[in-house]
Amino acid sequence: MKVVNLAEKLALFATHWDPKVVAEYNGNDIMVVKVEGEFPFHDHPDTDDFFLVLDGEVLLDVEDRTHVLRPGELFVVPKGVRHRPRAEREATLLLIEPRGTPNTGDAATAARKDRI
Amino acid sequence: MKVVNLAEKLALFATHWDPKVVAEYNGNDIMVVKVEGEFPFHDHPDTDDFFLVLDGEVLLDVEDRTHVLRPGELFVVPKGVRHRPRAEREATLLLIEPRGTPNTGDAATAARKDRI
Repeated sequence: MKVVNLAEKLALFATHWDPKVVAEYNGNDIMVVKVEGEFPFHDHPDTDDFFLVLDGEVLLDVEDRTHVLRPGELFVVPKGVRHRPRAEREATLLLIEPRGTPNTGDAATAARKDRI
Repeated sequence: MKVVNLAEKLALFATHWDPKVVAEYNGNDIMVVKVEGEFPFHDHPDTDDFFLVLDGEVLLDVEDRTHVLRPGELFVVPKGVRHRPRAEREATLLLIEPRGTPNTGDAATAARKDRI
């Protein structure tokens, strides 16, 4: 039980599309991630996907629309809905997913999601 | 499915300790709340309690310690742990709780948690 400072956690790593677990909530991983460039289109058949922009601008392609997310803006992609986050310049996000959810929608290609 | 701007949602109401639901994630309510003064000590026997400060400073008394939370800082109170948020001046928070969780730990005294 302690205060988690998101900026301090983000300063601990430089890699993109490499979410780090900073806390847990009811079996969900609370994560921070740095993004830049394009992630593959994917979906999560069993879970919604929570995005909150902390810094920068994130484009979220959801089915046939592109949503622009800026700091202090969140978006929940419902389970089963295809989506792709991307960012022209580095941006940072808070993510929430059930523990063990592959970030790509596929365990074979998923990031490790280490705890920091 | 749409972008939720937290500052815009917070501008829609002025009441304190009156969380408003702005999105859902896997059966959890994602809420914003304005706080000032002291909330009662309480616990949630069945769920962790997620706090992320958006603006201002929040003091979180957890058992016998006081944690100071500033913008960009989060804290997860594990289920069953007694806690009390308070704020000397108005502050705003993002909260996550399973839908239907009484914010006071007691349905008889809980806020309505309307969707905005």
